[in-house]
Amino acid sequence: MTQPLRIALAGLGTVGGGVIRLIETNGTLIARRAGRALEIVAVCARDRSKDRGVDLARYQWEDDMTLLAERGDVDVVVELVGGADGPALALARRTLGAGKGLVTANKAMIAHHGMELARIAEEAGAPLKFEAAVAGGIPVVKGLREGAAANRIARIYGILNGTCNYILSTMEQSGRDFAEVLKDAQDLGYAEADPAFDIEGIDAAHKLAILAGIAFGGRIDFAAMEISGITRIRSADIAQAAALGYVIRLIGLAESEDGCLFQRVQPCLVPRTHPLASVDGPTNAVVVEGNFSGRLLFQGAGAGDGPTASAVVADLIDIARGDTGSPFSVPVAALDSLPPADSGGRRARAYLRFTVTDRPGVLAEITAAMRDAGVSIESLIQQGRPEEGGEVLVAMVTHEGPESGVARALELLEGSASITERPLVMPLLG
Amino acid sequence: MTQPLRIALAGLGTVGGGVIRLIETNGTLIARRAGRALEIVAVCARDRSKDRGVDLARYQWEDDMTLLAERGDVDVVVELVGGADGPALALARRTLGAGKGLVTANKAMIAHHGMELARIAEEAGAPLKFEAAVAGGIPVVKGLREGAAANRIARIYGILNGTCNYILSTMEQSGRDFAEVLKDAQDLGYAEADPAFDIEGIDAAHKLAILAGIAFGGRIDFAAMEISGITRIRSADIAQAAALGYVIRLIGLAESEDGCLFQRVQPCLVPRTHPLASVDGPTNAVVVEGNFSGRLLFQGAGAGDGPTASAVVADLIDIARGDTGSPFSVPVAALDSLPPADSGGRRARAYLRFTVTDRPGVLAEITAAMRDAGVSIESLIQQGRPEEGGEVLVAMVTHEGPESGVARALELLEGSASITERPLVMPLLG
Repeated sequence: MTQPLRIALAGLGTVGGGVIRLIETNGTLIARRAGRALEIVAVCARDRSKDRGVDLARYQWEDDMTLLAERGDVDVVVELVGGADGPALALARRTLGAGKGLVTANKAMIAHHGMELARIAEEAGAPLKFEAAVAGGIPVVKGLREGAAANRIARIYGILNGTCNYILSTMEQSGRDFAEVLKDAQDLGYAEADPAFDIEGIDAAHKLAILAGIAFGGRIDFAAMEISGITRIRSADIAQAAALGYVIRLIGLAESEDGCLFQRVQPCLVPRTHPLASVDGPTNAVVVEGNFSGRLLFQGAGAGDGPTASAVVADLIDIARGDTGSPFSVPVAALDSLPPADSGGRRARAYLRFTVTDRPGVLAEITAAMRDAGVSIESLIQQGRPEEGGEVLVAMVTHEGPESGVARALELLEGSASITERPLVMPLLG
Repeated sequence: MTQPLRIALAGLGTVGGGVIRLIETNGTLIARRAGRALEIVAVCARDRSKDRGVDLARYQWEDDMTLLAERGDVDVVVELVGGADGPALALARRTLGAGKGLVTANKAMIAHHGMELARIAEEAGAPLKFEAAVAGGIPVVKGLREGAAANRIARIYGILNGTCNYILSTMEQSGRDFAEVLKDAQDLGYAEADPAFDIEGIDAAHKLAILAGIAFGGRIDFAAMEISGITRIRSADIAQAAALGYVIRLIGLAESEDGCLFQRVQPCLVPRTHPLASVDGPTNAVVVEGNFSGRLLFQGAGAGDGPTASAVVADLIDIARGDTGSPFSVPVAALDSLPPADSGGRRARAYLRFTVTDRPGVLAEITAAMRDAGVSIESLIQQGRPEEGGEVLVAMVTHEGPESGVARALELLEGSASITERPLVMPLLG
């Protein structure tokens, strides 16, 4: 057995503690599988005195995080500090620049700076791995980069944020409203005190951007990502979707279209028979559609210290075994620049929900706008009982048509005195 | 870019044709990802003149398959001949012995001779890979060997045979009987003309044995595998299960118990809320339970030329990228010999179905045997309307208890004049 893989750990939050516990618990087993031991040499975090439930005495403490990258007794730095920029990015640059491996769970940093970091890694011949940045413990980066490597990927989509999925599936099961369920999720630790990153779809978008980069061999272009969150979904929408045979899930979807890249995070109506419809709670699931593999589904815990540590250590084992391939499957220099696809031409059936004042002529106004924009309505449901505040919900499902048609109809309705809130539009996942 | 990975292909059936088509279709993409081209150099099959829908003229034809292993212009042999022994095994031994890589879809060969072949591979420093041998296009060997490598695996289980799953889910949806649906499956190409390997559970057992070897770090012991197929399941069983909130699936399950290995393929009742319950048609799905990852699910097409070729070529890409790790994660010499677990002590709720003659006292006889064996009945359903031949079905679900109790009750009922067929026992998947 060769010498241990020597690891420095930056960041000792829940995931950092999980990594230490995992290596302590499964160390012997891991050494057999990896062919060498994983040895944590040094650690660094903001507060040395905090009780983390693990014994840190056996590891060297480094006060200045970036010095981890300089240590001669370290082969790989595990970055669990978080934040797209700042100390995490500085550490990543220095680590890879020094020819050491970097393993990170930092989706924001990879989504924004993954190209730069991969270039440094490739130039230095150092491994850069980020399985834990996407979908917690699910080995989907590996599944895509290696398992599905023989395939031209048609599209990749899935449930990438456990907080949103917990909220939506709980709203569905309990009939309660968004705000109330969010509060519960916060109390249970499924949502942060400041939940914006999750519920606005940003976190899912970071993960989708990373997956899309690997799937389509394009440079990550996070600015081109279209993002809507789940904050405007009401229990009435969920009930309406249920009546139509659908559930609502926040879906991140990326697709290659004639050399362009479509990438969007938004709530969608998912048919109850679709494998993603039965994904409840904080679970994540990703579907990869390859031209030979067909549809592959990867599902598991999307967050939590154990699952995320499992992904971090899987990366470490890969490095211990000698994996030093391109982080994004294809060398950065060979990645394409994929222009954003024109989403207006995308065809879908769509769910539209209007909140309107309960007065004569509203329906005529809405349906006329649909007609004028060439949008064909498949079914229309006006809710009988008014919501709080006297407003009434009007929901409809359109026939399949271009998104630009729906957008045009909503433009025609802008400024309508009867419509009290920006209409909610969700495509039906086909 | 380094020189191409030079491949010889033995066996040109549907999967062999799929591999050629895949490499021809996605070759440029694959070369970018693998860092080098995959180049098929030579091929070999029984009949040179057969039309396979692919142009073989550009490849050298080898009449004697084992000579593929000797060619100086070949780096890896892809074995798609099939059969646990005979020519496939001879080719595998010679290929690895000559220090060349071997990629195979041959589950029977790996289940029976995987240890020997892995030893030859490890001694020669040659890669041996068999992703396509388990669950078609689903990268579950990789998911287990690498993605979940940080975990102690508690158990692994899943739907490993597409033919059985097609039959069971079709029986469920159509209410038709086994024989009729099997016939359809044969007509549709989902079942072989001789379906025994599939419907008796042997094929699933081969796959489970391979997964269990990787998951638990034990030498494969196929003889210790407990195997029951699906031939005795009636539409009445499926209806009964449905009434209780379950579906019936052929489940392969392996579990480590105090240093012993439990491994069994048998039909089980799966709660309708379980992710495996919604796996319909010829799909496969595997659940891996790790001590840090939690429950991971891998799902996709379990067979077919495209998916299987996708797995074969994923292995080739791994080899092209330089992966030469131990085929079973741990070097063969370090694998444990795990004795078979005593399954009698396993606790489960169980579904029991008796076929009985419709006469007084039958129920008393059965329930007395249950009582005497200490088996507690949770619910009992006697079917009112007799089946063909005048027999009546009596189904019951037991409370959780040891399997040995149920076995004892059935022993007590052996030779009963009222029971017309060996009772069917299926555990409820917990």
